[in-house]
Amino acid sequence: MITLHHCVGTRSFRPLWALEELELPYDLKVMPFPPRARAPGYLELNPLGTVPLLVDGATRMTESAAICHYLATRDGRSELAVAPGEPDYAAYLNWLHFGEATLTFPQAIVLRYSRMEPPERRLPQAAEDYARWFGARLRAVSERISGRDWLAGDRFTMADISVGYALMLADESGLSARFSPPIQAYRERLRSRPAYRRAGAAELRAAAEQGVADTAIAPSA
Amino acid sequence: MITLHHCVGTRSFRPLWALEELELPYDLKVMPFPPRARAPGYLELNPLGTVPLLVDGATRMTESAAICHYLATRDGRSELAVAPGEPDYAAYLNWLHFGEATLTFPQAIVLRYSRMEPPERRLPQAAEDYARWFGARLRAVSERISGRDWLAGDRFTMADISVGYALMLADESGLSARFSPPIQAYRERLRSRPAYRRAGAAELRAAAEQGVADTAIAPSA
Repeated sequence: MITLHHCVGTRSFRPLWALEELELPYDLKVMPFPPRARAPGYLELNPLGTVPLLVDGATRMTESAAICHYLATRDGRSELAVAPGEPDYAAYLNWLHFGEATLTFPQAIVLRYSRMEPPERRLPQAAEDYARWFGARLRAVSERISGRDWLAGDRFTMADISVGYALMLADESGLSARFSPPIQAYRERLRSRPAYRRAGAAELRAAAEQGVADTAIAPSA
Repeated sequence: MITLHHCVGTRSFRPLWALEELELPYDLKVMPFPPRARAPGYLELNPLGTVPLLVDGATRMTESAAICHYLATRDGRSELAVAPGEPDYAAYLNWLHFGEATLTFPQAIVLRYSRMEPPERRLPQAAEDYARWFGARLRAVSERISGRDWLAGDRFTMADISVGYALMLADESGLSARFSPPIQAYRERLRSRPAYRRAGAAELRAAAEQGVADTAIAPSA
């Protein structure tokens, strides 16, 4: 049985969504945010103190985009990954990485220095610098998604989960107002997926059952 | 023929090193840094304005860690990637992503706000925040590399290039003073690889031949 350690609304929503897309059984452990400070014992499981932590037998992973690709490929080919030899293999890998490495970290800077830090430690210049940085990178998504439904392989894949979570996060970082019509339409396609909705319901149900009231940011659903 | 658009000392060193490890032929185009501002015409090739840009026939990629994995897997199995079914497949993917998404972006913040911005726009607090953030994540590398030579699969792989570049960058960001003895020894193993040295020589030779004098940071070699 796979165990996913999760905080509501954080990047660990990616593997949760992936598990629902793959219809794999899993155990979801929800913690208050930030778990490093507020979940006693979690550092023993994951010394980084970050989410996600996925445990699959002897396997332990902490990188949300890598976990999505792992889940889609560990048992052989899956429609949720694009395989070597398919024309969009390179595009799939590029968007899988882009969603986290290029689209999520600038938003983490914006959120930290405009909302999460106490007022005396906020840095409006850094928040503005990386809001602009995000906007410039977002144009690549807009161009790619114009005239197609999904990012790679003519089907929904883990690359859409990687980039899709970054787009959902933009509602929290205040940056979704910059979304072009093609990105807005793409976001609605993502939100209407049954597995996305099931993942959003699962994190709220688990949080309620496990008595976790405080979440990092708003739930994804 | 593969073309790699590159700036000396930047994260596009990852695919350059990967090409040398794989002994693939390539054409190296070197630009002054930052190419967005200083390489006329580059935005037409890559609207993001970032490096790397790898062009392989109709394939175009911009994410340095994704490119390394692509190059190692596009023609089938390679010892430089760990394949599904191998015990360290998950670890390989996790470190491949970790090198960029977790170890490189905090250093970009440190470099930007302590060195690259003009003095009136520097933010010592942000630089200190992310120096500390980097140090906390680095402990995971130190623990992993203690008692083994390479990160995954009992051999050198693209995961080592991904994390290895982040360690080389720490000489520039001023954070390599925090390296534990196991990380220092790992860095020396990385530096002594013939392909690493060839990549370092290739970027300097191409920069000289193409008349590019200004580099982002010190050459990697």
